[in-house]
Amino acid sequence: MPEIKNAFHVQPAKLLALGFLGLILLGAFILWLPVSTHEGISFIDALFTATSAVCVTGLTVVDTSTTFTLFGQIVIMLLIQVGGIGFVTIAILIAVLLGRRIGLRERLVLQEAYGQVSLSGLIRLTQQIAVITVVVEGCGALLLAARFIPEYGVGNGLFYGLFHAVSAFNNAGFALWSDNLMGFAHDASVLLVIAALVILGGLGYTVILDIVRKKSVRRLSLHSKMMLIGTAALLIGSTLVFLALEGDNPKTLGPMGWGDKWLNAFFMAVVPRTAGFNSVDMAGLTDSSVYWTMLLMFIGGGPGSTAGGIKVTSLIVLILAVWSVLTRREDVQAMGRRISRDVVFRALAIVFFGGVIVFAGSFLLTLTEPDGTGLHKLLFETVSAFGTVGLSLNFTPHLSPLGKLVISVIMFLGRVGPLTVAYALAIPPRAKPIRYPKEDVLVG
Amino acid sequence: MPEIKNAFHVQPAKLLALGFLGLILLGAFILWLPVSTHEGISFIDALFTATSAVCVTGLTVVDTSTTFTLFGQIVIMLLIQVGGIGFVTIAILIAVLLGRRIGLRERLVLQEAYGQVSLSGLIRLTQQIAVITVVVEGCGALLLAARFIPEYGVGNGLFYGLFHAVSAFNNAGFALWSDNLMGFAHDASVLLVIAALVILGGLGYTVILDIVRKKSVRRLSLHSKMMLIGTAALLIGSTLVFLALEGDNPKTLGPMGWGDKWLNAFFMAVVPRTAGFNSVDMAGLTDSSVYWTMLLMFIGGGPGSTAGGIKVTSLIVLILAVWSVLTRREDVQAMGRRISRDVVFRALAIVFFGGVIVFAGSFLLTLTEPDGTGLHKLLFETVSAFGTVGLSLNFTPHLSPLGKLVISVIMFLGRVGPLTVAYALAIPPRAKPIRYPKEDVLVG
Ligand SMILES: [K+]
Ligand SMILES: [K+]
Repeated sequence: MPEIKNAFHVQPAKLLALGFLGLILLGAFILWLPVSTHEGISFIDALFTATSAVCVTGLTVVDTSTTFTLFGQIVIMLLIQVGGIGFVTIAILIAVLLGRRIGLRERLVLQEAYGQVSLSGLIRLTQQIAVITVVVEGCGALLLAARFIPEYGVGNGLFYGLFHAVSAFNNAGFALWSDNLMGFAHDASVLLVIAALVILGGLGYTVILDIVRKKSVRRLSLHSKMMLIGTAALLIGSTLVFLALEGDNPKTLGPMGWGDKWLNAFFMAVVPRTAGFNSVDMAGLTDSSVYWTMLLMFIGGGPGSTAGGIKVTSLIVLILAVWSVLTRREDVQAMGRRISRDVVFRALAIVFFGGVIVFAGSFLLTLTEPDGTGLHKLLFETVSAFGTVGLSLNFTPHLSPLGKLVISVIMFLGRVGPLTVAYALAIPPRAKPIRYPKEDVLVG
Repeated sequence: MPEIKNAFHVQPAKLLALGFLGLILLGAFILWLPVSTHEGISFIDALFTATSAVCVTGLTVVDTSTTFTLFGQIVIMLLIQVGGIGFVTIAILIAVLLGRRIGLRERLVLQEAYGQVSLSGLIRLTQQIAVITVVVEGCGALLLAARFIPEYGVGNGLFYGLFHAVSAFNNAGFALWSDNLMGFAHDASVLLVIAALVILGGLGYTVILDIVRKKSVRRLSLHSKMMLIGTAALLIGSTLVFLALEGDNPKTLGPMGWGDKWLNAFFMAVVPRTAGFNSVDMAGLTDSSVYWTMLLMFIGGGPGSTAGGIKVTSLIVLILAVWSVLTRREDVQAMGRRISRDVVFRALAIVFFGGVIVFAGSFLLTLTEPDGTGLHKLLFETVSAFGTVGLSLNFTPHLSPLGKLVISVIMFLGRVGPLTVAYALAIPPRAKPIRYPKEDVLVG
């Protein structure tokens, strides 16, 4: 019954994609209003900022701290929160609070939004997500405020704490200082709280809920185990890589003591997946670190989280599939479980679209930006947008108007997910239950 | 029976990889001898040149035309021919000519070398490959010689014709002029003959034989149809892309008349897949053209040909697999045929290794080469080596000794094929016929 199967996916996908688009346009309009900024901004800059906030990317063409009024900054924070937790979740929560019944249609949209396999328990999941968000962001905000209040006063200190907790847990990477978090390079209390929020946010609600429910590592789902192992491996490995590459670099970690070297190398490993805060000047990194950061940004965090990129699990599934080819096994397997062909194909499609988007995006930028800009800057910007990371080699403000549009579209694709967008655009195929004869093809 | 299955692949793979390695070392030693060069070269340069010749890549650290004696140039031509047609083919041909019996073991090696599915008819295939090579290279050599003899005399003209026909049909890209084929940018008789040889060589023997045997397009195998359609699409599309990107560039096609613009844009579309000749200065290209060229180099030509890269069919199979995900079909299908899961997984593994090799290789180059060299140069060099293309942004001679080693290893991996190398290195897994329970993983 291919038609029903398709209806399951095309309609929710369309609604999700259009919802994000509507939210972006609404946000752009509000940020464009005189009340949001001190001296006004162009519509393309307002659109870029709204896209960056809703898609929790954090790339900025204007300085968030000096351009926007308190009102504008609160709008940005709300866009981050709604974009991060998902407007579907917000809409369902409001409906539940108002005592309305949630029908099959809404459940199907939720299923697509969360990337869930089953239809049952979606409403409970929505409520649990809300509770987790409030608890985690609340704790983060208080911890950060405790650090900020002595310096900025109670009102500003609380707002700064809340803004950065929301920005961190939703992996947005917006900060209210012109140099992002570079002023806190020696401040473990700020960097570690932010890092913890970023890591939790990047694992995804599915994993956090699984840990809260099961309370035992051994009984966790295969998905949670993969995410935890993959995340730990990427974090530990990348901390060592950055320590080795940047330890002696006078522009970054070189002048620091050993404690701060470790702290900032760890922070550099955390943020490309996909927070986009920076505690050192990205433009001062060695070419090797820039390249390694691109890899981390392309991989991103976990599915069903605020992270972009191809996702840690997609990468692991593909590695396992390749391993099954090398060892000539029939099944793709991991930790005593078999992974179905459908999951492998879905991971393949995601990585394929990721590659196509990054290539096409940076190719377009070679056309829109002046020749000789340097491929590494364009590629870095594109991967950062696709991974909704928001790190930049200080190049975003120099983008041409067309370039800003390209990056905006990539942020959108990165946040909504290339597969969801593809489903939203796909024409439902006609039912065709014919099975063709098999023929082999050589593939090198 | 996984052990037997593995024995089928590990042993021939090991032999193929070691054979190529031996041929490279032998070639390096001969090119290092005083008789091969006018003024001597370092061993690393001899090794690099031999690797480049045996892996039919065409990257050069020294000028082939002025560094090597006639003897050295003939050695390079023979290395290209043996590396291109494959030393297994040569060995089998000699054995057949000597009237020796070819056993199962040799057939298994041939099967791996040709990437063939079936074990029958391999000897006949070997003989047919030899005939095709002699006929095509002979015709090409005569056509080119007809152009060269008036200019260089009979002896030199014939040698130049033969050398460049061998270099073109084996997709090697070595030329006996310091500026490669830039002196023939306005000479359709040379560029079109070379282009024809390159295209035929890049299609692969399987396709050429299929065309010769069937004589009808409709009865061609799915593999041949895919290769022909894919190659035509890439050639036509890329000619138009280069015409658009370079038509007005004063450093490349700008000063040419319309006929030469088309001729050279077509040539630019042909050579990255995977010939490595150039009729215009690669360093003069726009950033966009450089990037597009990298894409073509990564894709490469056909399996069972002298081309490197991930291969046209792997790309098409992956696109079809992604399409099956989008349309929610059970089967991956093309032109009324079903493509098996095994073929898709194999294509996936090849592209995966391709990505890993290109990333790892260029990452290593950021470490071995001075900071600030420019990522586009390092990436271009790496992709060119992996695709055994041999184009360069004039950077190869500036590589550090360690960088030369990195590029040599990548050329080797590109030529032998990442899967074959992986099989050669793989430890045979223990028999484990357990089928684990299925569990789904979210891949976002
Ligand atoms: K971000
Ligand atoms: K070549």
